[in-house]
Amino acid sequence: MSTTNTGFLEDFAAMSGFGATAAGGVDRQAGTAADHATRAWFGDWLARHGFTESVDAIGNQFGTLELVPGAPYVLIGSHLDSQPMAGRFDGAYGVLAAAHAAARVAAEARSGRLEPACNLAVVNWFNEEGSRFTPSMMGSSVFTGKLALDEALAVTDPAGESVAAALAAGHRPAGGAPVLADVARYAEIHIEQGRNLEETGTQVGIVDCTWAASKYRVTVDGAQSHTGSTRMEDRRDALYGAALVIAAARDLAAEFEPGQLHTSVSEMYVLPNSPVTIARQVRMNLDLRSPDEAVLARAMELLGKSIADAEGRSRTQVTLEQTHQWGLVPYQSEGVALGVASAKRLGFSHTQIMTVAGHDSTNLKDVVPTVMLFVPSVEGVSHHEAEYTRDEDALRGVELLTEVVRRLVAGELPAE
Amino acid sequence: MSTTNTGFLEDFAAMSGFGATAAGGVDRQAGTAADHATRAWFGDWLARHGFTESVDAIGNQFGTLELVPGAPYVLIGSHLDSQPMAGRFDGAYGVLAAAHAAARVAAEARSGRLEPACNLAVVNWFNEEGSRFTPSMMGSSVFTGKLALDEALAVTDPAGESVAAALAAGHRPAGGAPVLADVARYAEIHIEQGRNLEETGTQVGIVDCTWAASKYRVTVDGAQSHTGSTRMEDRRDALYGAALVIAAARDLAAEFEPGQLHTSVSEMYVLPNSPVTIARQVRMNLDLRSPDEAVLARAMELLGKSIADAEGRSRTQVTLEQTHQWGLVPYQSEGVALGVASAKRLGFSHTQIMTVAGHDSTNLKDVVPTVMLFVPSVEGVSHHEAEYTRDEDALRGVELLTEVVRRLVAGELPAE
Repeated sequence: MSTTNTGFLEDFAAMSGFGATAAGGVDRQAGTAADHATRAWFGDWLARHGFTESVDAIGNQFGTLELVPGAPYVLIGSHLDSQPMAGRFDGAYGVLAAAHAAARVAAEARSGRLEPACNLAVVNWFNEEGSRFTPSMMGSSVFTGKLALDEALAVTDPAGESVAAALAAGHRPAGGAPVLADVARYAEIHIEQGRNLEETGTQVGIVDCTWAASKYRVTVDGAQSHTGSTRMEDRRDALYGAALVIAAARDLAAEFEPGQLHTSVSEMYVLPNSPVTIARQVRMNLDLRSPDEAVLARAMELLGKSIADAEGRSRTQVTLEQTHQWGLVPYQSEGVALGVASAKRLGFSHTQIMTVAGHDSTNLKDVVPTVMLFVPSVEGVSHHEAEYTRDEDALRGVELLTEVVRRLVAGELPAE
Repeated sequence: MSTTNTGFLEDFAAMSGFGATAAGGVDRQAGTAADHATRAWFGDWLARHGFTESVDAIGNQFGTLELVPGAPYVLIGSHLDSQPMAGRFDGAYGVLAAAHAAARVAAEARSGRLEPACNLAVVNWFNEEGSRFTPSMMGSSVFTGKLALDEALAVTDPAGESVAAALAAGHRPAGGAPVLADVARYAEIHIEQGRNLEETGTQVGIVDCTWAASKYRVTVDGAQSHTGSTRMEDRRDALYGAALVIAAARDLAAEFEPGQLHTSVSEMYVLPNSPVTIARQVRMNLDLRSPDEAVLARAMELLGKSIADAEGRSRTQVTLEQTHQWGLVPYQSEGVALGVASAKRLGFSHTQIMTVAGHDSTNLKDVVPTVMLFVPSVEGVSHHEAEYTRDEDALRGVELLTEVVRRLVAGELPAE
């Protein structure tokens, strides 16, 4: 590997020190002190490598490199924020890989080894994780016009602090940041967060489609009463109703072929959450994903029956409000072809692959031609401190992204 | 009814204004501003009615009336704190009834209509509910020597505020408060929190026993992972494991005759509680009660099997730590007989009754002869804003408690 690649691993180790947990992960939810510290370090890295740093109104952090005055940008990035007690690769790997790839391609262009058609920008999207501030992919949603800036800035965390306040407390360099109209192409690299690449011994993946997903906010309404003295037949226990829904959602997956349906319930709030009082209300998130839209539809039909049964058994009322819904969404075939050609050129074993998780590229691909790449995750571990990608896989990903960016900057991917 | 009884309803309405909720309940957890305001009002009431107010180190609020210099006290009371969004009768009714009963009996003694053998003290026990600060019955537990004062003062609420700090912020008159050695007898009146009296058309209940109860802190340990991308077979979802335990605990009740087993799970904490991360840990309270100790033992045996099954299905580890355990605990038969004689004397229809809920008298009866009385609860509603006891039932209870206190002050209940 080249000297630059050795530098990548050193930089990644340094970056992983911000919000580091004892077990080797990071804890740097969006807009926290640990996130701000990581952003400040990355801003310094950008400056040291000749990028011009800027931050837009929703906190997306950019580093731009001018190669062709007035030309649009090839934008490359991911996110530096994390889930609570999470892994150090998710997002952060992609941001640093983007920065290294951009620096290398810019050097090639400036030394005449490459004829650039575009300028280069790297980006750290604000709040991709959505753990502290809902919704997830906040920065890229505002950037692509899917979410209003004012609405995003007004979102508050469970302690009542707003996005606007959290951003104001952090690192904010002056100067104009790129806007969507300035961007011609987008590329992103991420760890797989699954174990398909590892199991098939494949070195890199080129993402061609996103799984279909439906997400709901579930509210279970019961009635407060005394945990001890209330007769069992008089109870309307919202936590019991919620437990039946959680179990039903999980058991649903067994109704389909393995790998056809992922379901989960997460983030739960119990009211009043007192030791001797039966819950009057439970609120939680329900998440269903599938590589087949028909499976998702059938799953929701089955779940509806289970929920009606849960309502009857617990004497509660269950309300579902859909918060996210997307079908199978393909990445542009020209972008996939460019990714495949790049992997071939470098001699990396590769496969086209679907992504189950959402990424900022999910937003970007809807508005500009996009290339999305994966490197293997050991055992598919994700959103856990034990998340891991081997050095050789991480470095191979930087090589692949560099080749993709090289081609994008040269204007290889035509507009559709 | 007498003028004093009319005054009781007026006083009760005034007291119910502190921490009042729109739906007719109260929300005044221990040591909050609403609790402090209620305590200050009650302190003022005591002073206006000739009581000497004092507060001990754990925040128990007393009003004493000297009738026989140097004699021990007949202590009467309950608690003014409430669950979140709860009813206005639970505890508060008993404190005000005690104050009215004490004032009437003292007036009788001072006018020569009664020969007193004891002094009188009313008490508002601190933190009976245990919703903000664990454990419940904190004030009476410290008073009776079951819980160390330092340990209780160091307990913190979920926001990190200690009992000591919460007490320091409130109403603290100077002066020595009674201690256990000063107390000869205890009496308490409470709403039933069940519907046995109402269903049988009985006016008052004399409590003769406490249901057996076992309470556990349940910890479900799984592993964090991504709600979307983690394969179903790779998941170790602590929330799914918790849901199986909640459902199993509830279904257990159906294995026994109606009214033989009450079970519930309440107060649940989910880590990390993020929308796209599977829970690594859930902590919750499990509560089992029965009027038959053998039922409780059999229930725990069955639950153990269900928990082992839940662990297997969810690939989690479930740990139970017992936090409370008591068998069927009778109240002294002499106290029950005195309560029955009092009800007969007043011509009230009455029955001996078990209490399912714990009360401060549960602590006091272990150390001094105790009389515990119930008045009916409409539909048995408890720990809910709709909790209700009719005026005529509330006033009848004050009459009964007054008669009981009259007999206790006269020395009718012999020491055992």
